[in-house]
Amino acid sequence: MKITNIIERAVPIDSQIRNAFIDFSKMDVSAVVIVTDVIRNGKPVVGYGFNSNGRYAPSGLLRDRFIPRLLDATDDQILNEDGSNLDPHKIRSVLMTGEKPGGHGERSTAVGVLDMAVWDVVAKVLDQPLFQVLADRYRGGTVDKRVFVYAAGGYYHPGKGLAELQQEMRDYLDMGYSVVKMKIGGAPLEEDLRRIEAVLDVVGSGDHLAVDANGRFDEPTAIAYGEALEPYGLFWYEEPVEPLDYELHARLAEVYPLPLATGENLFSMPDARNLIRHGGLRPDRDWLQFDCALSYGLVEYLDILEMLEQYGWSPRNCIPHGGHQLSLNIAAGLGLGGNESYPGVFQPFGGFADDVPVEDSYVGLPEVPGVGFEAKSTLYSVLKSLHE
Amino acid sequence: MKITNIIERAVPIDSQIRNAFIDFSKMDVSAVVIVTDVIRNGKPVVGYGFNSNGRYAPSGLLRDRFIPRLLDATDDQILNEDGSNLDPHKIRSVLMTGEKPGGHGERSTAVGVLDMAVWDVVAKVLDQPLFQVLADRYRGGTVDKRVFVYAAGGYYHPGKGLAELQQEMRDYLDMGYSVVKMKIGGAPLEEDLRRIEAVLDVVGSGDHLAVDANGRFDEPTAIAYGEALEPYGLFWYEEPVEPLDYELHARLAEVYPLPLATGENLFSMPDARNLIRHGGLRPDRDWLQFDCALSYGLVEYLDILEMLEQYGWSPRNCIPHGGHQLSLNIAAGLGLGGNESYPGVFQPFGGFADDVPVEDSYVGLPEVPGVGFEAKSTLYSVLKSLHE
Repeated sequence: MKITNIIERAVPIDSQIRNAFIDFSKMDVSAVVIVTDVIRNGKPVVGYGFNSNGRYAPSGLLRDRFIPRLLDATDDQILNEDGSNLDPHKIRSVLMTGEKPGGHGERSTAVGVLDMAVWDVVAKVLDQPLFQVLADRYRGGTVDKRVFVYAAGGYYHPGKGLAELQQEMRDYLDMGYSVVKMKIGGAPLEEDLRRIEAVLDVVGSGDHLAVDANGRFDEPTAIAYGEALEPYGLFWYEEPVEPLDYELHARLAEVYPLPLATGENLFSMPDARNLIRHGGLRPDRDWLQFDCALSYGLVEYLDILEMLEQYGWSPRNCIPHGGHQLSLNIAAGLGLGGNESYPGVFQPFGGFADDVPVEDSYVGLPEVPGVGFEAKSTLYSVLKSLHE
Repeated sequence: MKITNIIERAVPIDSQIRNAFIDFSKMDVSAVVIVTDVIRNGKPVVGYGFNSNGRYAPSGLLRDRFIPRLLDATDDQILNEDGSNLDPHKIRSVLMTGEKPGGHGERSTAVGVLDMAVWDVVAKVLDQPLFQVLADRYRGGTVDKRVFVYAAGGYYHPGKGLAELQQEMRDYLDMGYSVVKMKIGGAPLEEDLRRIEAVLDVVGSGDHLAVDANGRFDEPTAIAYGEALEPYGLFWYEEPVEPLDYELHARLAEVYPLPLATGENLFSMPDARNLIRHGGLRPDRDWLQFDCALSYGLVEYLDILEMLEQYGWSPRNCIPHGGHQLSLNIAAGLGLGGNESYPGVFQPFGGFADDVPVEDSYVGLPEVPGVGFEAKSTLYSVLKSLHE
């Protein structure tokens, strides 16, 4: 088989929201299509990829470095042994040729975008859903038919009051979510506590609510929030402090006895390993949110899972950031703890297949070949426009 | 004052060399010019910047995100209090608007390129050499008139034998260097030891020779090399292992009693702090090589120096990677331990002012306004071509 073309385009994401750090209305993502000469169901197999929210479209890196490297590679460098399919591990090596170690940002997103498209091709050539391919290759065939998902929202908007926040959360419950997440740290502690209590009035109890500080707190603030949050018994307290300040995570974990979650801003196995080694997190309760689409892709994510196993962590500790279908396939195929979901924002890239309802915060996956992009009509129409 | 234009161009660097990870012949750097409306010596003040070797030109990031942010900023967002000059700290905040924490790579290079040009402007508006500006602002005016530099070379080339390696090192001695550096890890240990002994025959003793593994060794190899190197009493043993594997650095530091050096692949203060906290390095003997031009610039480097002070390290422990004139100014103005130098490679970006000789491995700085690019003719002709 051959890759006949690769096309990239930066696409805006639909979000009028902000968190503690950024205004998403200025954010875009790179969407790519890898076109092959393999015919399935009467058409050439194509693979789609895009990056998660939170980091900008790495268009320049893709166009100047990574797409040319992939197009210039020989068959032997990118195909499996019998030449019948792409080999994502080999392709990862091709993409990282001439790249020094360290400095895992931006290029990790560019490689992640291509990796997503490569796995979409691999599963489509096999005419199977990707979760099945992953389960067969790495987990003895066992698939989780339903995956835990939680509704990530509760952003700050100018003029958004408690009533609007409560209505947002009611909408998530109506959509079938029983666990929701809201932002903290964009307002003073007392105001955030009023926001949290307003949401608890809707969702019932703390085990239905996670909160996310987006890495903004210094040590006194993180501890003050921790002490104030503890009585609520929340689902998790996410990214309390600077994502690379492992020592501070460890100090916080000593005083906050309930679940912490972090990892969305660590983009490689060596960075993830440092969190595990130095961050003081606890495999019996804490959550890891590494997002393959920002972190060199599923090939690197497999390395992360292997590292986690060596340190006594389970794939069940992992609930990736990003709310995209690739992580949903990984969750179902490799037995992760779940996946993030952003109902209604980061469209059309966020969210899962049409006509697959969320029930009691679990969602199924469509039985279509590949990652399943074709089963999400608004996303598919954008992706299709790249090449048709 | 106003910024009237910013121009960026990717420029190849002249190097037919490879290290343990990359082939430099495919590497380019971004060169930028910031044009202002301030007149000095009859001409508008312009500032030049470029990135160090080892990372690719971040052209897309500069053009899509960072240059537009700087051009879109208001005077108040980028100027000092009386409006007479650029404020590099404020500009750093403008550039990082909308950027999440973590993921320090590529964008750290893009911001570093602009930061270099900003400091060049700042010193030219003051009509002073940058080292003097830095010494006045941050060090009570004390300048190191001469800065320690070592000759980094000893790369592997196809067909390069011991005689050629020795000749290269003799050339460095003839240029005025008394400390030289060579690569290791691109050949088996026994062959590398023969290479080292050949160079020692030229330079006389181990305290005149540093070796650099470019982060390639696993633990047994790093330790085996350490045991084999120890009897030579080398100047330093650089980047023995994966730059983010702090725990392995700490284990190596327990068994290798002589100086280690690392840091060129850590691109932010939080990453540098993790090395200091978790890497087991020793302020009484080890060397730190953070390179501002790959790491968000001098503003971030000032944060790194402040962090180092808190952990009991001195600026004298710092000998930056990169061999460029900005780090040479920082070394002279802020009292670093020295600076890298690449005689004859990475041209025209590597190296220092024309007509300033290296003597006994120390070099002076030209008394010209700014970073001193105008005093290096081959570099200046490339930079000038950006806008003239």
